[in-house]
Amino acid sequence: MRDDCIFCKIIKGEIPSYKIYEDEKTYAFLDIKRDTVGHTLVVPKKHFTNVLDCDGEYLAAVMETVKKISRHYVEKCGFDGVNLINCSGVSAQQSVFHLHIHIIPRRADDNMNLWPLGDGDESMDLAEVAKMLEMK
Amino acid sequence: MRDDCIFCKIIKGEIPSYKIYEDEKTYAFLDIKRDTVGHTLVVPKKHFTNVLDCDGEYLAAVMETVKKISRHYVEKCGFDGVNLINCSGVSAQQSVFHLHIHIIPRRADDNMNLWPLGDGDESMDLAEVAKMLEMK
Repeated sequence: MRDDCIFCKIIKGEIPSYKIYEDEKTYAFLDIKRDTVGHTLVVPKKHFTNVLDCDGEYLAAVMETVKKISRHYVEKCGFDGVNLINCSGVSAQQSVFHLHIHIIPRRADDNMNLWPLGDGDESMDLAEVAKMLEMK
Repeated sequence: MRDDCIFCKIIKGEIPSYKIYEDEKTYAFLDIKRDTVGHTLVVPKKHFTNVLDCDGEYLAAVMETVKKISRHYVEKCGFDGVNLINCSGVSAQQSVFHLHIHIIPRRADDNMNLWPLGDGDESMDLAEVAKMLEMK
């Protein structure tokens, strides 16, 4: 836990939140920015910056909670699906530096477009890209 | 493995792909739609539709691979961060029904906006939303 981290403060109850779920390793609450109805954040109870530094045990626990909540939203709350989003790094538009997975509950008739990409980037051939990204 | 699933066919090598990484439970390859340079998909080697039905062991393995590749892209390939996206359900714009996590590698100067939300939905008070989503 970090004294200067807003999500650590939420987990400790020092800042109020609309809690959706909590277990030993994870905490889930409504995003106050609420871009969409039901926009939920799932965080580990131990402080990690993002996916790049999160340990496997906590990352697995966070995803298990993400799954549990997503199923609940679809099975019990009238949603038809979910989008999950994570931003890891300033350049990936991360704004709070405590790992969080966004759950965006979706309905068939919500008319949202959660897929912001699509202009395409054909500046490199796929074979070139694969070469660049090779894991030796 | 499903005979009618394009990602199962990719895993089995029946359809070619630009493979980035593979281990016992997971397979990662370049998205041929390549909305962005380096757009990568990570899938479990066992067929699950999406996050809603994936078992914990495979979900954890997929996330471990997502983390491994993300770190590689940031530490070795000149990217500054990653966005992760998952679409679970037709209404969440899922188009291939084999669980996949999108890795969108980001650079500080890429001028992309991967956060498509923001108009805001204040049709419900947060307390009402929390009540609606309660896990009894």
